[in-house]
Amino acid sequence: MNARNAFYAQSGGVTAVINASACGVIQTARAHSDRIGKVYAGRNGIIGALTEDLIDTSLESDADIAALRHTPSGAFGSCRYKLKSLEQDRRQYERLIEVFRAHDIGYFFYNGGGDSADTCLKVSQLSNTLGYPLQAVHIPKTVDNDLPLTDCCPGFGSVAKYVATSMREAGYDVASMAKTSTKVFVLEVMGRHAGWITAACGLAAEAEGDPPHVLLFPEIPFDKAAFLARVSESVSRWGYCTVGVSEGLLGPDGKLMAEAGTRDAFGHAQLGGIGPLIARIAQEELGYKYHWAVADYLQRAARHIASRTDVEQAYAVGKAAVEFALAGRNAVMPAIVRKSDQPYAWVIGAADLNDVANVERKMPREFITPDGFHITDACRRYLAPLIAGEDFPPFRNGLPEYVRLKNNAVPKKLAGEFKL
Amino acid sequence: MNARNAFYAQSGGVTAVINASACGVIQTARAHSDRIGKVYAGRNGIIGALTEDLIDTSLESDADIAALRHTPSGAFGSCRYKLKSLEQDRRQYERLIEVFRAHDIGYFFYNGGGDSADTCLKVSQLSNTLGYPLQAVHIPKTVDNDLPLTDCCPGFGSVAKYVATSMREAGYDVASMAKTSTKVFVLEVMGRHAGWITAACGLAAEAEGDPPHVLLFPEIPFDKAAFLARVSESVSRWGYCTVGVSEGLLGPDGKLMAEAGTRDAFGHAQLGGIGPLIARIAQEELGYKYHWAVADYLQRAARHIASRTDVEQAYAVGKAAVEFALAGRNAVMPAIVRKSDQPYAWVIGAADLNDVANVERKMPREFITPDGFHITDACRRYLAPLIAGEDFPPFRNGLPEYVRLKNNAVPKKLAGEFKL
Repeated sequence: MNARNAFYAQSGGVTAVINASACGVIQTARAHSDRIGKVYAGRNGIIGALTEDLIDTSLESDADIAALRHTPSGAFGSCRYKLKSLEQDRRQYERLIEVFRAHDIGYFFYNGGGDSADTCLKVSQLSNTLGYPLQAVHIPKTVDNDLPLTDCCPGFGSVAKYVATSMREAGYDVASMAKTSTKVFVLEVMGRHAGWITAACGLAAEAEGDPPHVLLFPEIPFDKAAFLARVSESVSRWGYCTVGVSEGLLGPDGKLMAEAGTRDAFGHAQLGGIGPLIARIAQEELGYKYHWAVADYLQRAARHIASRTDVEQAYAVGKAAVEFALAGRNAVMPAIVRKSDQPYAWVIGAADLNDVANVERKMPREFITPDGFHITDACRRYLAPLIAGEDFPPFRNGLPEYVRLKNNAVPKKLAGEFKL
Repeated sequence: MNARNAFYAQSGGVTAVINASACGVIQTARAHSDRIGKVYAGRNGIIGALTEDLIDTSLESDADIAALRHTPSGAFGSCRYKLKSLEQDRRQYERLIEVFRAHDIGYFFYNGGGDSADTCLKVSQLSNTLGYPLQAVHIPKTVDNDLPLTDCCPGFGSVAKYVATSMREAGYDVASMAKTSTKVFVLEVMGRHAGWITAACGLAAEAEGDPPHVLLFPEIPFDKAAFLARVSESVSRWGYCTVGVSEGLLGPDGKLMAEAGTRDAFGHAQLGGIGPLIARIAQEELGYKYHWAVADYLQRAARHIASRTDVEQAYAVGKAAVEFALAGRNAVMPAIVRKSDQPYAWVIGAADLNDVANVERKMPREFITPDGFHITDACRRYLAPLIAGEDFPPFRNGLPEYVRLKNNAVPKKLAGEFKL
C-alpha cells in the first residue's frame, strides 16, 4: 500500500493555539511516514484546496514545525469561506475531490468550528458518493467554545486565561485610582452568541468584591435599570465597578446592542463598540468617570499568556486526528472528555460529525447567577481547569519569538482555474 | 538620634511596576531601622497626607512587601490631585508639614511623574521655609516616559513590552486572515503628548513587512492622504496593514482627533476613541474590512508581561531614594543613567529636582522616520533594552497572584479635618 498524502486546513477565526493542533497533525504524520506521505496545507484554508494552492509542509524543518506549538494565528492562512450546501453548489465539493485526486490525498483534516465541522461532514459523505476514498476528520477549534460533545474547544482556554488575567490586572489599576479618577471600567470581549468568554472574565473574582463586579452575557438581554443598580451598588460598596461585556450583548428587543451594520462572509453581523456604549450609559445615568478597553484580536492572539491545558489539548486533538485516520475512521472529531474536575483529568474521545455539525453549545443557564450578572460555582468548576498552567513561548529581544514558515507551494497539476 | 518616620505616596496614573518602587523603598527602609522608623504610606496618594489618612506599612509582612515587586497598580491607592502653587494655596503645604510633624516624618518619598516632581520640589523648599527638617526625594514613574534627566521612566518599559507583544500577536492573527477577512487592524495606545508608547509598538517590526506597518504619533499631525496611501501600499505589498496610533493624535488643525466630535457613516456620534476613528477612515476611503483594539488600562496594568529591565529599574529607584535620604540629600530624584546600548548597562545617578520639575521630554524628531510613519534605527537602539527580559509573576489557579495589603490606618493625631 502506497502512503497517501494528507490535506490539512485551518478555518475561520484563528486562535493562540490552532497552530499547536497543526503541529500535532504534522509531527504525528511525520512519525507515520510509512502510511502518510506528505501533509499538504491549504493556503488560506479551504480556498487553498479549491484553487489548488497547496503548501508543501514537508519542506519545513522539524524545528519550525515544533515552533508551531508556541506560535499564535494560522500559520498557513485561514479564511472565512463557507461552502454552500451540496444542493446549492455541488461543483465545489467535486472540485475538492478533483484536487485531492490530483495530489493523491487520502486524508482530509479540517481544523475549525461548527461551520467547518459541517463542511468536513459533507466532504466525507461526498467522497463516498463519488467513489473517491477519503477519510475526513474534523479537528475542533474555536475561541467561542460552542462545539458540542467536547468538554471544551481548543483556543478557548487561552482566551479565557487572557481575559481573566486582563480583568484582574485592570481591576487592580482601577481600584488604586478610583478615589479621584475612573470609577467604572468596561472590558469588551468576544463571544458572539455564547457567553463563555464573558464568563471566563469572572474567574478573576476569587473573593467578595474582586473584579469583575458585573458581567453582561449575550444570553441575558440587557436590562438598563438592573445594570445601573448593580453598578451603583458596586461603586458604593467597593469604590469602583468593573464590567465584562460580550460583543454579542442583546438589547431588550432581542437585537444586537452594537450592530455596526456590516456583515462578514458567513453573514454574521460585524460587531464592535458595545464596550464604549455600556461605559457611556453608566456615565450618563450615574455620572461616573469611565474607561473602556476593547481587546479584539489581542485576546485570541495572546499566545504569550496561553493556557498550558489549552496548548496540550490543541496538540492532542491534532495528534488524535491523524491516529483516527490511521485507524480507518471517517466523519469523526477528536473530542476532549473530562474525567474529573479537580484534579482536572481528560482523555481524547471521538464524536460523530453528524452530531457535531451545526449544533451550537450555549452556556447553561445554571452557569449564570439568578440575577444574570455573574457566574455560579458550577461555572467556576467547569472553567477553572481550562486556564490552568502556563506555557510561555521563547522570548528574543524582549518579545515572543514566533515562527514564520516558508509556505512553499506544491506545483499545480490541474489545468483549469477554479472560480470561487 | 531617634529614627524618624518616612512618608511614601504614589501619584498619578499607576503602572505595572510602581509597586516595585514601593517595595524598594520599604525593604530598604526596613534594612535601616536604626535610622528610619516606620514607613507611612499616603492612602490614595498625597490626599492621604492632607487628610491624615496614613497607612502603617510596618503592619505588613515581609512576604507581602516582597510581593509588591510583582503586583501591578498602586497598592496604597494613587490619585490625580495636583497641589496648587505655593502662591495660590499655601495652606496645603502647611498642612502637609503639620501632618508630618504630628507623625514625626522626616523623609518624604513621592513616586510619580512630572507634576509630582514639581510638588516634591515645593515640599522640599517649604520645609526649609517653615523650619521643619524634611528630606524630599522624588521617585520617577510614568508610562509616558516623558521625564527629563533619566534614561527612561519606570513603568514605560513594561507598557512598551506589552504593546510591542500585542502588536506582534495581533499582526500574526491579521496576516493569517487577511485573504478573506480583516485587512486593516488598528491598535490604540496611550501617550497623550509624547509618542514613546506608539514608538514601542514599532519594536515588533524586525524584518521588512512585519507589523506594525504604520505608526501615528502625537508629534506628527494626521495627514489623511499620506496615511491612506501608506495603508493602501501596505495592503498591496503584504496583504494587510497594521496600525499603531496614539490616543493623542492631532489633526491638521492641531486639535485632538479623538475629541473632534466626529460622526460615523450613519451620523451617530463617535463612541470610540481614535482607534476606531482611524480604522473607519481606512474602511470608508479604501473599502477595507477593519478591526480595532483599544488596550486602555490593560497596557499599563499588564504585570504578567512586564519587562525585567523595567522591574529592576523600578525597584532600584525606590531603593536609591531611601539611600539618598540616608545620605542627607534633598530635592533630588534617582535617575537611570545609560552607560551603553548593547549590552545595555545602566547605573543610578541623581537629578536635581529643579531641573526635573515641569520639563516634558518629547520624542526627538530623529527617532521618527522622515515620512512620519515609523521609528528609526536610533529609536530602536534606545528602546530595545527597555523591554528586555521577562519577570513573570507567580501564578495560582491559572492567574497571576497579586498581593492585596492590609492597609491599616495609622491612628490620627490631629483634631481638625482638612477640606480638600
